[in-house]
Amino acid sequence: MGTWRLTLEYDGSGFEGWQRQPEGHRTVQAVLEEALSRLVGAPVAVTGAGRTDAGVHAEGQVASARFEARLAPGELRRALNAGLPEDVAVRALEPAPDGFDARRDARAKLYRYRIWNGPTRSPLRAPRSESVRVRLDLAAMRDAAGRLRGEHDFASFQAAGSSVVTTRRTLHRVDVLGRAGHAIRIEVEGDGFLRHMVRTLAGTLLEVGRGRREPGSMGAVLAARTRSAAGPTAAARGLTLVRVDYGIPRDSEGLGGGPVDAGKALG
Amino acid sequence: MGTWRLTLEYDGSGFEGWQRQPEGHRTVQAVLEEALSRLVGAPVAVTGAGRTDAGVHAEGQVASARFEARLAPGELRRALNAGLPEDVAVRALEPAPDGFDARRDARAKLYRYRIWNGPTRSPLRAPRSESVRVRLDLAAMRDAAGRLRGEHDFASFQAAGSSVVTTRRTLHRVDVLGRAGHAIRIEVEGDGFLRHMVRTLAGTLLEVGRGRREPGSMGAVLAARTRSAAGPTAAARGLTLVRVDYGIPRDSEGLGGGPVDAGKALG
Repeated sequence: MGTWRLTLEYDGSGFEGWQRQPEGHRTVQAVLEEALSRLVGAPVAVTGAGRTDAGVHAEGQVASARFEARLAPGELRRALNAGLPEDVAVRALEPAPDGFDARRDARAKLYRYRIWNGPTRSPLRAPRSESVRVRLDLAAMRDAAGRLRGEHDFASFQAAGSSVVTTRRTLHRVDVLGRAGHAIRIEVEGDGFLRHMVRTLAGTLLEVGRGRREPGSMGAVLAARTRSAAGPTAAARGLTLVRVDYGIPRDSEGLGGGPVDAGKALG
Repeated sequence: MGTWRLTLEYDGSGFEGWQRQPEGHRTVQAVLEEALSRLVGAPVAVTGAGRTDAGVHAEGQVASARFEARLAPGELRRALNAGLPEDVAVRALEPAPDGFDARRDARAKLYRYRIWNGPTRSPLRAPRSESVRVRLDLAAMRDAAGRLRGEHDFASFQAAGSSVVTTRRTLHRVDVLGRAGHAIRIEVEGDGFLRHMVRTLAGTLLEVGRGRREPGSMGAVLAARTRSAAGPTAAARGLTLVRVDYGIPRDSEGLGGGPVDAGKALG
């Protein structure tokens, strides 16, 4: 049995999220496990680095799996892609060290949240953006974003009802990119994320951009440690899991210098 | 009766092109005329600068229309957008000089053709790109593109069976942007375009990029003046009408510095 690392791109609009659910629900994990199992002729389970929600996209989700393959990695990737639906693709497939676990071994993840901040709807951007017509105050959003960087207890940014051992996380980057009146991206990179955390960060920063919250209030939001202290959960369609970083060096098999670039992010 | 200029964005995937067709066909012109007629309470006809094909997108299509409106332009635009489906929006709406005709008065148009040149499918880019897996020779494509710039008889790049007065056109720019193995854009700007011309230019440049044609053969393709001399018509989904330029100065009402930027393109 070999251990494998898969890098995946998907359009989240047609999926009920990453994680396998009872029969009848179309999830990325289920679609991938079925295609892999058909290909290798035995049941295969995959572990994803991030359990993306329904509607959330990925450019560089990473998954691990153990299976026996007689094909070379390139051929295996091509055969697997041929068996997958149009809205999901394996961007890279490579052998991984024994015991590699995409979720447990992830050192950092980069998420991007897209906002279309124009005075009119944008039919071409709408499927992958949150639309905000009022001109956002990006300076205020950047001020607030800077206060969320670093190690904090992010309990206020966690979906109500979640239970995890610790709600402390470290954000290496919280960047608000672009110009008001245009396409804006919030990029958040950190060592781990709570449920709905990026979307709640985006929803809170959007309230700051609309002038409904002061940038200086971020400290109090964090200190409250309760979901109601933060802003609304921004729409899933704006969110993309861009990249997952691991400490280990890796081949760039099949990526052609693509979006996954291990070892660079934590600089 | 006032004369109006409308700047439109649409996702072409759900339309059978720009031009109105017999009942039962969903076209951008028909959808726009219906919404405008409902809004002003009288039949309104619109003229588009470019008759985009089925599946072709627009960021900055321009249309002209004559109608009586009691609302201010900004309110009119908002009311019109509220009456339009999700896949089309009016980005700007402004009064135009009497007699303004979006098609006849257009001085230049800019089209963008997107290619995803990666070793694997890209689910997020596929809906708006032509996918090419073999690594394209961009230097050869740029060489060929340079030979198509300028004033030529483009009869070889026109859909078979078309009849127009003259097939001479001037291309101000034919640029191949990006790096092989990544997202590539072909940008073509000219004073006018024949039916399928940009898609046939793209299809021919793609053959050059695949090594199936020499860049130096472009002169012979032009000289042949017959459709069979050029390459295949590239897929409609890769094409976007980015901008239409007019000689007249204009307000930027509602555009917020968006993609339409008159008077700049012809430099």
